[in-house]
Amino acid sequence: MTQESTPQPGKREGGKEQNSLPPKKDTKLNPDLNVSESKKGKLPGDSYVRVGQRYKRLFQRVDSGHLVAAPGLQASKGMFGRSYRVLKRVVIGRPLFTTEEVHQRLTKVKALAIFGSDAISSSAYATEASLVVLVAAGNMALNATFFIAVAIAVLLSVIAFSYRQTVYAYPHGGGSYNVARQNLGRAFGLIAAAALLIDYIMTVAVSIAAGSAAVTSALIAAGHGHLITNMNASLPSFFNVNVILSLIFIGLITIGNLRGIRESGSIFSVPTYLFIFGFSALIIIGLVKYLTGNLHAVTPIPQLIPTQPLTLWLVLRSFSAGAVAMSGTEAISNGVPVFRPPESKNAATTLTVMAALLGIFFLGLSFLSTRMGLAPGNQTIISQVALAVFGNNGFYFAFQIATMAVLVIAANTAYADFPRLSSVMARDNFMPHTFASRGDRLAFSSGILFLGGISALLLIIFRGSVDSLIHLYAVGVFLAFTLSNSGMVVHWWRTREKGWKSSLIINAIGAVLTVIILIIVVVTKFMLGAWIIIVLIPLLIGLFLTIHRHYTAVADQLRLTPEHLPPLTVDQFALVPIDDVNSASLRAMSFARTISKEVVVIHISTSAERAERIKKKMETYAGDLKFVIVESPLRALIQPLAVYIDALHEQRPNAFVTIVLPEFITAHWWERFLHSRTAENLLQALKKHTNVAVVSVPYHLEK
Amino acid sequence: MTQESTPQPGKREGGKEQNSLPPKKDTKLNPDLNVSESKKGKLPGDSYVRVGQRYKRLFQRVDSGHLVAAPGLQASKGMFGRSYRVLKRVVIGRPLFTTEEVHQRLTKVKALAIFGSDAISSSAYATEASLVVLVAAGNMALNATFFIAVAIAVLLSVIAFSYRQTVYAYPHGGGSYNVARQNLGRAFGLIAAAALLIDYIMTVAVSIAAGSAAVTSALIAAGHGHLITNMNASLPSFFNVNVILSLIFIGLITIGNLRGIRESGSIFSVPTYLFIFGFSALIIIGLVKYLTGNLHAVTPIPQLIPTQPLTLWLVLRSFSAGAVAMSGTEAISNGVPVFRPPESKNAATTLTVMAALLGIFFLGLSFLSTRMGLAPGNQTIISQVALAVFGNNGFYFAFQIATMAVLVIAANTAYADFPRLSSVMARDNFMPHTFASRGDRLAFSSGILFLGGISALLLIIFRGSVDSLIHLYAVGVFLAFTLSNSGMVVHWWRTREKGWKSSLIINAIGAVLTVIILIIVVVTKFMLGAWIIIVLIPLLIGLFLTIHRHYTAVADQLRLTPEHLPPLTVDQFALVPIDDVNSASLRAMSFARTISKEVVVIHISTSAERAERIKKKMETYAGDLKFVIVESPLRALIQPLAVYIDALHEQRPNAFVTIVLPEFITAHWWERFLHSRTAENLLQALKKHTNVAVVSVPYHLEK
Repeated sequence: MTQESTPQPGKREGGKEQNSLPPKKDTKLNPDLNVSESKKGKLPGDSYVRVGQRYKRLFQRVDSGHLVAAPGLQASKGMFGRSYRVLKRVVIGRPLFTTEEVHQRLTKVKALAIFGSDAISSSAYATEASLVVLVAAGNMALNATFFIAVAIAVLLSVIAFSYRQTVYAYPHGGGSYNVARQNLGRAFGLIAAAALLIDYIMTVAVSIAAGSAAVTSALIAAGHGHLITNMNASLPSFFNVNVILSLIFIGLITIGNLRGIRESGSIFSVPTYLFIFGFSALIIIGLVKYLTGNLHAVTPIPQLIPTQPLTLWLVLRSFSAGAVAMSGTEAISNGVPVFRPPESKNAATTLTVMAALLGIFFLGLSFLSTRMGLAPGNQTIISQVALAVFGNNGFYFAFQIATMAVLVIAANTAYADFPRLSSVMARDNFMPHTFASRGDRLAFSSGILFLGGISALLLIIFRGSVDSLIHLYAVGVFLAFTLSNSGMVVHWWRTREKGWKSSLIINAIGAVLTVIILIIVVVTKFMLGAWIIIVLIPLLIGLFLTIHRHYTAVADQLRLTPEHLPPLTVDQFALVPIDDVNSASLRAMSFARTISKEVVVIHISTSAERAERIKKKMETYAGDLKFVIVESPLRALIQPLAVYIDALHEQRPNAFVTIVLPEFITAHWWERFLHSRTAENLLQALKKHTNVAVVSVPYHLEK
Repeated sequence: MTQESTPQPGKREGGKEQNSLPPKKDTKLNPDLNVSESKKGKLPGDSYVRVGQRYKRLFQRVDSGHLVAAPGLQASKGMFGRSYRVLKRVVIGRPLFTTEEVHQRLTKVKALAIFGSDAISSSAYATEASLVVLVAAGNMALNATFFIAVAIAVLLSVIAFSYRQTVYAYPHGGGSYNVARQNLGRAFGLIAAAALLIDYIMTVAVSIAAGSAAVTSALIAAGHGHLITNMNASLPSFFNVNVILSLIFIGLITIGNLRGIRESGSIFSVPTYLFIFGFSALIIIGLVKYLTGNLHAVTPIPQLIPTQPLTLWLVLRSFSAGAVAMSGTEAISNGVPVFRPPESKNAATTLTVMAALLGIFFLGLSFLSTRMGLAPGNQTIISQVALAVFGNNGFYFAFQIATMAVLVIAANTAYADFPRLSSVMARDNFMPHTFASRGDRLAFSSGILFLGGISALLLIIFRGSVDSLIHLYAVGVFLAFTLSNSGMVVHWWRTREKGWKSSLIINAIGAVLTVIILIIVVVTKFMLGAWIIIVLIPLLIGLFLTIHRHYTAVADQLRLTPEHLPPLTVDQFALVPIDDVNSASLRAMSFARTISKEVVVIHISTSAERAERIKKKMETYAGDLKFVIVESPLRALIQPLAVYIDALHEQRPNAFVTIVLPEFITAHWWERFLHSRTAENLLQALKKHTNVAVVSVPYHLEK
């Protein structure tokens, strides 16, 4: 590019203005930023060298063409930008270096707290879920819950046993997506992924709703029920106290996960173990009181008028509802690699302990509840049992708080799993790539925010009610179980590792049982909301495939092949649309002259008289450039310009049209509204045109 | 600019791909689009010439560098764009040529309908506004309304007489803004403008609310009151039937004005004259019935329990409320030029007729209402009187419909005045310039849309209640009256035209009276809402002045002076930020090579391994360009890049940094969410940097 001095009509002198740029070609660009001190004498002022020093400090030079940016480096920003940064720093914490990622290995004790809280905590609401269904058949029917609980506990042990197989077979993490994809094929992998993602969202919504219910139950037990009634009365109906509490919990967990608390097991251990000990005490004391005949309900037991007999259908529905207790059993199989060695053995042991605790708690609570004949009311069943066992005292409240805490922490399991699975899906091109990128604190921020947002929405839509949300829950859980177990059957058949036959049998039993439960769940809950999930899963799979197709197509188009290389340089001419001849548009013309030999300046005219004035000015100030006036009789600006660009483009179909737009940058944001958005609109209109490059040459207004 | 073939490592051949652009320099650009047929043989194919023909048809060549765009020309647009255009065409109508603007001259009959509907229609609600205040003093106190009406009628005649002076003195339009600015100075001009703009908004809100009330009153009279009660019960409280009706009316008037019905007096004449004849009949029949002793209220008259005596304060408040009847008197003074010659005389006559009709209607209605002892209730006063006079029959309903129509049309007066005044203000740089530009139908679209939006908002906030809105109304009206009359006093003193002394005295009396009314209005309505206006006017003036200062500063900065001319060409180097080496980024590099001799390609790296791969690819495909890797240990992309740009910039403070960004244009809009917004964010971040030009080189994804 030669910077020839085009002959010029009119007086033109080197400007002194801030915005004018006399060409200075003596300094050569130094992209490595290795300005040596010795050059100091040559440079015009001290300031230049000082600035160079500053940037040398900000960019450490490793090698030619290889710099490392200083971590704290921040471009100057406006007040909003700075406030946002400070706020983010306070809420989320200081950004972490990529190298700071540590994979802390977990002891069995911590792992139980992290991976087990989801499963164990389901004992807090599963009994109630089962009872609610039986209410229709009257008080006596409630007893069926205990037998249903026995059946579920047996199934749970089978499923836990089958997952122990997975833990040994997939020491690098055997989530259902992985197992199904590797053994059953991509389609089943995607079904499992869709089921799991939905499952995680439901885990958050249900656990948080149940945790909030624990708080309100405790308040009712403490005699502050009227407080909640009053607050609910003054709130809009879709925004009751439970919803507000739930949203606060979701906000806290979301922020916590954005901060990256994901693997800091210690803080989670406390409430989980408090809950485990408290629940154990509840069962033991409860049984002792029962055997000594001292166990009596202290909450009123409503006289339920039976509206239907205790049919098999009702029992199956109650079973489906109670089966949510099994959710979370798969969590450990995802996280085998974070256990201390021997990873698989420790994971399997933890899994067994977890399943045992869950089974005992669920059975015990169901037993105590049915013995007292408790019915679901404005207090949760677990709260009613705890009141009867502990009495209305400090123990009861401590237990309620532990229940609340463990339920909130159960949601946290999903906060670890959802972003991890979605990042894997994103890397496999089935979800937007943003789910795979790590935020300031190395967490998968997009997944965390998405999970928080969608479960908050669910809680608002379902008014924070566990009873409503739970209908949507179990389908995803058992679909994932079925696919995982079926995948494992194929796995054993293919690998024929040592002892594959017994493993295959165990997983086959697991697969058959889970598919039966899945069918029961789908059939009994279909009309209650499960249909939403049945509809959603194929839609999600369609979405995954569409996204995958898009990314594949883009990669195909971008791939470099010897026959598809762009030429080294391009044919190019510049077009400068102007509204007037002033220092901003002249500056754009100077820029256009610099980057192209062929420059056309165009004015779309809505007033002949103004056009004449502009033409005169063009002759004075930029007579060397071709100037075209296009009259627009209907006063449209964008359309004639866009069509004119097409007209030029057709003359040289292979050339780039470079549109040079002078862009005003106002000193204050609100001043933008005082200027027309022609440049922005033009940019939008030209996006559809191929081979049109748009340059915005900013003109900063000082005042 | 020389398109030298830079030596190039790796095999590079001319591409066949759609996105690759082999330079073709044989065809010279023809910005005049006068492709001659004789060139046909030379060109590669028929298609090119055909296209050239097409553009020759779209752009008629007037002279060298002077084209006229065909009116229908439209760049190809997506489905949304096309649907929007079709919809706009249906709703707003075909765009009009700038040359189609006609200034239709109005006969007195039409002018009375257009300019008089605002003033005359106030008689439909002024009596009620006055009565409502007196309710507090019991049924007997309501009689005071008649005497207040007499006082207002006398004042009205003085004001009308003083405006006749203005009509003669300012045949080219004597709006208060003009008169005050020319005679009292800029500050008073701006006060008048602020008062008038508020006044016009209030006219729309109050007239529309009163029009809706006419409809609901008629429904109540027809025995369908329960319909309205039921609908209101099922609607949210801020969205009652009146509000919905009002919003529909505003929507219709706004669309009508965007179509440009502004000066098509005929369709307005019908309801206005129906109203005038109907109201005249009401007064005459009412008086006859009264004199023959047959006039009796047919609506229930509530027994009002006096809560306070009939104090002077109450009378003054009632007067202030009734004084809104005088609003709209100034409308004709704005529009003198559109009258048929002799303009001033015809305008003055129309003004007199209008004031006389308004006075008679207001007095008559107040008389009949007080004689029957009517009190405001769920039906409007005018509806109650009409029921008593006409009976519950077709006449009554026709009258109600005419009332509704004239009130809606009264709003239309403001729709003519607000955009006109704001366009004048915009041309004087006191309001955003968009208010001065004409839309498709030559109407001032921004002003029309703004007026519609803000009055709709007011109607929602005040729940469509005339009684609440009216408190905000009169301040602006009388402030404008005062300034206009005072301005006229100065005018007569300065010009000393023939007969100036008597004119000065008339306007002086007008000024004194209007200032007294203004003070009464401000004092009595202050706490009821007038304070909002008192606060708003100085804020608006501050806004006007700030906008004016901004536009002046911009003009100063853009002004071309011999010492402030930008140089002919600029020093410039290009920076190409890349995420990977692929056909899109190579294309951006080709573009960068074309426009600059110095090109730096930069990759902000978050993975050392990927950076190494990209470096290798760069060596293969673009070894001639300087390549810099900047490691970002905290994974930030924008910040290190922005600071690096600063670092390069400091080396050549006078040079332009041209950032060449490859930009993906996806085939479907939703696919945008699958790509990171790095380019957009970078653009935003770089806006603050001076001398950084950003080029987006679009890469169109085909699939």
